[in-house]
Amino acid sequence: MSSAFRDRHIGTDSAAQAEMLRVLGRGSVEELMGTAVPDAIHVAERESIIPPAATEAEALAELRELASQNRSARAMIGLGYYDTLTPSVIQRNVLENPSWYTAYTPYQPEISQGRLEALINFQTMVTDLTGLATANASMLDESTAVVEGMLVARRASKSASNVFLVDADALPQTKALLHHRAAAIGVSIRETSFDDVAGLPESFGAFVQYPGATGRVWDPTQVIAAVQAQKGLVVVAADLLALTLLRSPGSMGADVAVGTTQRFGVPMGFGGPHAGYMAVRAGLERQLPGRLVGVSMDAAGHPAYRLSLQTREQHIRREKATSNICTAQVLLAVMAAMYAVYHGPDGLKRIAEETTAKASLLRDWLVESGTEVLHDAFFDTLVVRTPGRADDVIADARRRGFQLWFRDSDSVGVSIDETTTVADLQSVAAVFGVETSKVFVPLRDRNAHLPAALRRTDEYLTHPVFNTHRSETAMMRYLKQLADRDYALDRGMIPLGSCTMKLNAATEMAAVSWPEFARVHPFAPADDVAGYLVMIEQLEAWLAEVTGYDAVSLQPNAGSQGELAGLLAIRGYHHSRGDVHRDVCLIPSSAHGTNAASAVLAGMRVVVVACDEAGNVDLADLRAKVAAHADNLAALMITYPSTHGVYEHDVMDITGAVHEAGGQVYVDGANLNALLGFARFGDLGGDVSHLNLHKTFAIPHGGGGPGVGPVASKAHLAPFLPSHPMAQRAEHAGGYVFDGGPVSAAPYGSASILPISWAYVRMMGAEGLRQATAAAVLSANYVARRLEAHYPVLYAGEGGLVAHECILDLRPLKEATGVTVDDVAKRLIDYGFHAPTMSFPVAGTLMVEPTESEDLAELDRFVEAMIAIRAEADAVAAGEWPANDNPLVNAPHSAASVVTSEWAHPYPRETAVYPVPGIVRTKYWPPVRRIDNAYGDRNLVCACPPIEAFA
Amino acid sequence: MSSAFRDRHIGTDSAAQAEMLRVLGRGSVEELMGTAVPDAIHVAERESIIPPAATEAEALAELRELASQNRSARAMIGLGYYDTLTPSVIQRNVLENPSWYTAYTPYQPEISQGRLEALINFQTMVTDLTGLATANASMLDESTAVVEGMLVARRASKSASNVFLVDADALPQTKALLHHRAAAIGVSIRETSFDDVAGLPESFGAFVQYPGATGRVWDPTQVIAAVQAQKGLVVVAADLLALTLLRSPGSMGADVAVGTTQRFGVPMGFGGPHAGYMAVRAGLERQLPGRLVGVSMDAAGHPAYRLSLQTREQHIRREKATSNICTAQVLLAVMAAMYAVYHGPDGLKRIAEETTAKASLLRDWLVESGTEVLHDAFFDTLVVRTPGRADDVIADARRRGFQLWFRDSDSVGVSIDETTTVADLQSVAAVFGVETSKVFVPLRDRNAHLPAALRRTDEYLTHPVFNTHRSETAMMRYLKQLADRDYALDRGMIPLGSCTMKLNAATEMAAVSWPEFARVHPFAPADDVAGYLVMIEQLEAWLAEVTGYDAVSLQPNAGSQGELAGLLAIRGYHHSRGDVHRDVCLIPSSAHGTNAASAVLAGMRVVVVACDEAGNVDLADLRAKVAAHADNLAALMITYPSTHGVYEHDVMDITGAVHEAGGQVYVDGANLNALLGFARFGDLGGDVSHLNLHKTFAIPHGGGGPGVGPVASKAHLAPFLPSHPMAQRAEHAGGYVFDGGPVSAAPYGSASILPISWAYVRMMGAEGLRQATAAAVLSANYVARRLEAHYPVLYAGEGGLVAHECILDLRPLKEATGVTVDDVAKRLIDYGFHAPTMSFPVAGTLMVEPTESEDLAELDRFVEAMIAIRAEADAVAAGEWPANDNPLVNAPHSAASVVTSEWAHPYPRETAVYPVPGIVRTKYWPPVRRIDNAYGDRNLVCACPPIEAFA
Repeated sequence: MSSAFRDRHIGTDSAAQAEMLRVLGRGSVEELMGTAVPDAIHVAERESIIPPAATEAEALAELRELASQNRSARAMIGLGYYDTLTPSVIQRNVLENPSWYTAYTPYQPEISQGRLEALINFQTMVTDLTGLATANASMLDESTAVVEGMLVARRASKSASNVFLVDADALPQTKALLHHRAAAIGVSIRETSFDDVAGLPESFGAFVQYPGATGRVWDPTQVIAAVQAQKGLVVVAADLLALTLLRSPGSMGADVAVGTTQRFGVPMGFGGPHAGYMAVRAGLERQLPGRLVGVSMDAAGHPAYRLSLQTREQHIRREKATSNICTAQVLLAVMAAMYAVYHGPDGLKRIAEETTAKASLLRDWLVESGTEVLHDAFFDTLVVRTPGRADDVIADARRRGFQLWFRDSDSVGVSIDETTTVADLQSVAAVFGVETSKVFVPLRDRNAHLPAALRRTDEYLTHPVFNTHRSETAMMRYLKQLADRDYALDRGMIPLGSCTMKLNAATEMAAVSWPEFARVHPFAPADDVAGYLVMIEQLEAWLAEVTGYDAVSLQPNAGSQGELAGLLAIRGYHHSRGDVHRDVCLIPSSAHGTNAASAVLAGMRVVVVACDEAGNVDLADLRAKVAAHADNLAALMITYPSTHGVYEHDVMDITGAVHEAGGQVYVDGANLNALLGFARFGDLGGDVSHLNLHKTFAIPHGGGGPGVGPVASKAHLAPFLPSHPMAQRAEHAGGYVFDGGPVSAAPYGSASILPISWAYVRMMGAEGLRQATAAAVLSANYVARRLEAHYPVLYAGEGGLVAHECILDLRPLKEATGVTVDDVAKRLIDYGFHAPTMSFPVAGTLMVEPTESEDLAELDRFVEAMIAIRAEADAVAAGEWPANDNPLVNAPHSAASVVTSEWAHPYPRETAVYPVPGIVRTKYWPPVRRIDNAYGDRNLVCACPPIEAFA
Repeated sequence: MSSAFRDRHIGTDSAAQAEMLRVLGRGSVEELMGTAVPDAIHVAERESIIPPAATEAEALAELRELASQNRSARAMIGLGYYDTLTPSVIQRNVLENPSWYTAYTPYQPEISQGRLEALINFQTMVTDLTGLATANASMLDESTAVVEGMLVARRASKSASNVFLVDADALPQTKALLHHRAAAIGVSIRETSFDDVAGLPESFGAFVQYPGATGRVWDPTQVIAAVQAQKGLVVVAADLLALTLLRSPGSMGADVAVGTTQRFGVPMGFGGPHAGYMAVRAGLERQLPGRLVGVSMDAAGHPAYRLSLQTREQHIRREKATSNICTAQVLLAVMAAMYAVYHGPDGLKRIAEETTAKASLLRDWLVESGTEVLHDAFFDTLVVRTPGRADDVIADARRRGFQLWFRDSDSVGVSIDETTTVADLQSVAAVFGVETSKVFVPLRDRNAHLPAALRRTDEYLTHPVFNTHRSETAMMRYLKQLADRDYALDRGMIPLGSCTMKLNAATEMAAVSWPEFARVHPFAPADDVAGYLVMIEQLEAWLAEVTGYDAVSLQPNAGSQGELAGLLAIRGYHHSRGDVHRDVCLIPSSAHGTNAASAVLAGMRVVVVACDEAGNVDLADLRAKVAAHADNLAALMITYPSTHGVYEHDVMDITGAVHEAGGQVYVDGANLNALLGFARFGDLGGDVSHLNLHKTFAIPHGGGGPGVGPVASKAHLAPFLPSHPMAQRAEHAGGYVFDGGPVSAAPYGSASILPISWAYVRMMGAEGLRQATAAAVLSANYVARRLEAHYPVLYAGEGGLVAHECILDLRPLKEATGVTVDDVAKRLIDYGFHAPTMSFPVAGTLMVEPTESEDLAELDRFVEAMIAIRAEADAVAAGEWPANDNPLVNAPHSAASVVTSEWAHPYPRETAVYPVPGIVRTKYWPPVRRIDNAYGDRNLVCACPPIEAFA
């Protein structure tokens, strides 16, 4: 046993691999890979700029060194990011607990009831505070949520206008995103101060920042009414903490509310990840982007949670989807929801009151001393007039350990948060030349700066869940009870094709909670984030090398955003050459729905390319489509290896054909785990790709997010990769190297989880990454071989080999036995497994991706479960059990469903829940029986049900 | 909701307390406490030196500041403490996981199978590596383990000699402990180099350090034989890592092996906590001190773990026990065992080989350069001759960031460990004037320094558990599976009378894993541990104040050691006054068994004092015993409030009577949680006490340890409190203020967990501590009142009030229904509870201590479970269910026991496992049925059973 991390990360050791190779009739891993990966793209091993693998201790030491290069300061910059106190009980039991962070998206709701309950708490928190009817289970960040709000308005508005009105006092990064995203889809952005309510131009919608970026608190009721009178919808970005004291957007007539929940206990993390939110008024539910949790019932008629209205989503509706969002920010949404659960309405209100009282005190000190403050009505942010001195003031503050907002050369912003102390305020006052001990400040109501007409009077967070878990003991137990209901990687394999549920090592996760990485404002001065910038630069270089690209942007905070950024880069490239007509995006029929949805959002038209019976892109059809659209061809999007889990041999022909016609090739990086070290997107004709750090590079799925989706490209597209007006590195700040406009609210996206991928690469080294790829491919082929006699493997490439995943065709089984994919997936729960990917990319199939992290014992346990299930299905076919009453159709079996005196099923209780003897010791009990999805969509309930519902 | 930590720590808020007071017919908490606590001892609220309560964020910031004052250095001091790499997967999933650290001692084995399995892994690891038959589940540290080894030898030897031979090359702290502890019990210590094997004096035993403190590796086989030939037993302290390469003590004939498992992944922590170990040859099992895990079977005949041979232990055998040890070091033993599980025999061997190879390389560099190294045969430690220059060498090393061992003015020790790098070795060589790049070192076998005759040839750790969990994924799941089997505070209340299972807050736990506290050698120079010393000084002062004492020593690393230290202080005091005859220790019959066992180890004779029918000390009997032993009276040991959970009103009379006769009063601090802020041991006549930081001051129980048992005394006893030859603060180093000799291996005991108690006091403030006391007493009285109609409350004080716990008398129930305490305790598991303390201090009772941390909902859930169980017992009495087949006698019910087609019991399955509807959602499933303890003791198996046993 060596001390190499790769031997801990890769589940199969050399003895296990030898046994697996024997089953496959292959002599070595190299031989296997040599056969599977087409010669044309197979790269030789070579020197790498990635340093030799570090041990876990070495990597931690290097991370500590990087952390020490981030200067800790009190961040009072504001602009949507506020320091916050993560309750230790939440940090330890959610953020640092694999039961939460290694879970997958809750597509199997029966084994996801814990996080679904946490998310419905989140939705209830958002709807209560915003005063709107329905909230989704998180957006990627506030600025992208505003963009999505604009898209909702455009879809729902009956106005023919292409104008969207934007608050001049909006956050600067939000404005930048709106401009960039609007341009791609033909929306005209008009900034306005909303002062002339009567003279507002016609629009399909308007966006209001509440409170404003400068801290101003004002009443947008009339603006809202005026926009709506012209058939526009109004999107309000509201600060949830402020809403505990101020009137809700819903009560003022807003159609949509968006924002961030960062300050509810989620560290700033140099920009993320945090959960954005969106809530809509009644009638707009079906316009919501992203994930929406709802209440339905299970086979026993008990309430049970699951994702609602999935037909809105891109994986079903493709180019007609409401949004391209796929990954959400579940882990962070859980944290924010639990912050509200722990503090309750009274606690949140107290935090808000203390915050605004401190802002008020600072304002009084300044004003009484003759310093001008911009607004009389504010919540937590002051803009202070400092004519000609803003630079000096900011610099002086920094020397004292405070980061303030450089608004312009004549004014400086200061934002107060729950961590601000009176001593902090005194220091900040001193920056403005005010010695507080010498200022007489009259005693007054410290809420006086909240206009009386805007004070909130209605109740919120009245549900018992927000009023019960008040002691740390109670909170700890609630978190444990929810975690116990869920199945995550800490229980067993999650063999989800296309999702790469590999190990998220504890060492990789360690740095995420260090304050030097966590308590950092995304707009902090470059000198204060030197450690972050070094880490980011290294990670960019490593990712560029392993993919064969020239430039990488880490800004996209989800795979979908990476796709969009990549397509926008292609669009920017064509436009820069005057090819504004190039707007056709070819997408194979097997592609993930997100591809199509992203293409639409990049202003492209989707043309579908057929696949042949082997699952490959139909080369003839591709050539035909290229020819038909040659003049307008913008791009081809392909996934490699294909979504069918096969290394296509024609890939160079495919990419060549597109290039010949002047198109660009987008290679979706979802399946990179089959390629690292053996082939590179850049070498096989890719011009641009997104990567999923939460798949290939060990960032955990967090129960449905965070994700990170860097975009990587060849040099000619680099100028069109994302920039950001506040980026600390000049090449990212626009106008220099990267100039594509931002796709995320923060310059480096979800920066605080980049140490995970950094540590992964650092500890694997180039050689370890290559070994991981081979191990993943070996495991997929082993599973395919062992199961092929029981379930046909739908597609295979050279030598009958699959890549890193395999598709099991269950359609013959259904035909023969009536047993469905759903039945098998749910029955796997009884055997102690998370189901593979269901019916993607082919309906009626299961796609299995074991990843390199599973050991042979777990692979065998899975294989044997699948074989046993096949035998059960055969028993149904043989009439041993009726088609409508057997262990498959009744799966999963909860404990309560078998602990009954009456038992009318034709199979015994033991068969129901202990189908194999080994499972008794490690039994996972699903908390509910099979959930009725249709019922939930017909009877939409997306907030916490009353306690009595569970009686 | 305020931001005060006390409102998170205390489970009942003011509304709940009002409801509870209503039930009790009391107007206020103050009135309740005023009635319960006798006026004579009730102290008024007053100014405190404890600063006003800090928030969690403030306390963390202060801890970070203290941490920053500890200088990080590479510790190469050796002497039993070695830097080590805690695998991140173990740190995160054990050390930082409340499912492990909030568990109680596994006295209820049915709900402790996870940690019992981890402990049997520990025992197997120790027996395999030491080559002996049976190991216990941990000692407090190596030096106390050596003392316990001496005691085993004395008990088991047939020699009449009172001489114990001690290796001159033993660790200095071990020698100091041996001298101090031997003196109290009349053992004569003789140091010897063992050179003259033929001339060894007669002895009841001998102690060998292997390898020696100076690193020497030698063959003690002949010494062992020679001592045994004179009827002595031989105790070998062996380094477990060295034993992966060197012959085992067992193979050389040793009777007992002891040592520490610290370097198996447990941070040095400035001295602890770590798990010591002890293993004995066949035939000495019943002589083992402390906890011993064994295999028995449950009611279904399946293998199940539980504590073996408890009749050896002090809580049963009292002054005739094998040892006074009560708390062990379970959490740390689990970590060490998991280190072996994760690395396996090959991994451990590789670590050992790399360690010794590095030592060898350094040695060669030095020797080839003409520097003298003391021994040719060594494992990891070199002593380098530096005539007259040792001070300078040490100082130079320190400047370069290395801590070495100042052995004497002419020699310096260097110890290598798994964290040592070649660069470290080069720096260290430079300290000795060797520029390694200029030295030619011949290539040679880097194991050559391990004598061929001593090389290990037999196998170890062959059990599958040490050869299966090799990937991090597999390890994480194994840890999760074990944790899932156990019941800890994260599931529900553990209402254990006398054990105070209060909240262990996440903020309190945070600093324990910070490297500035974790990677610190206990003998580091004072300047390098300034933060630790400040924290320790503050905690000493705070504890002194709240208990009314003048001096506190934090050295004892368990309550039992605190007791012993206190009694040794009393002994020292009497001896210092010439009263060497004062050796009688009065102990009430209700006292915890540890009191009596400790008294014996302090060289005292135990005289038992009767209790009256109200549970109080029988004043008349006390006066009689005092009179009878007046001349020889050394001490009275009492517990206050009494072990019966009552504030005795006569306590001043009791302590007065003892003082009048020249005796000293020892007040056992186990029940301090009923007193803090309302009365002080010092004020009610106590001269000395131990405190249990793991009860009153929020250190978690860790599943059976660590504990911390500071000893506090009045000024006249302070000179006799523990000192330590290596203590960094002069007043602790002996000869100055504290001069009592050491009771733990490290100067400040289990220093790394002191931040927990420091944070607790810092965040509660004096006022918060007082409120916690009142809340704990209120909860105990509430439970007593609500249950008294169903179970008589055995003892009460003024106003019918109990203190912080209450004893429920189940003897009438048994008489009426045949249902036993055991049945009720096990049935509580089916209701989702850990049982209260069983049959202590009175057989046939349950002692309930809810603590202040439980909220009213959980108290009510417990009360209702107890009432429901009473009704079940009545149903048995009424003949509704037979006495030998009912839900009580069959409890607990595992899932497997109810998921059966056949069900022959007269009650339904639902009654078995879902006796109340609320439990379906949070059901905890015990993994086994009731365990047969007698079977396990008759068929003693204390190592991992073969896998087939579980088939």
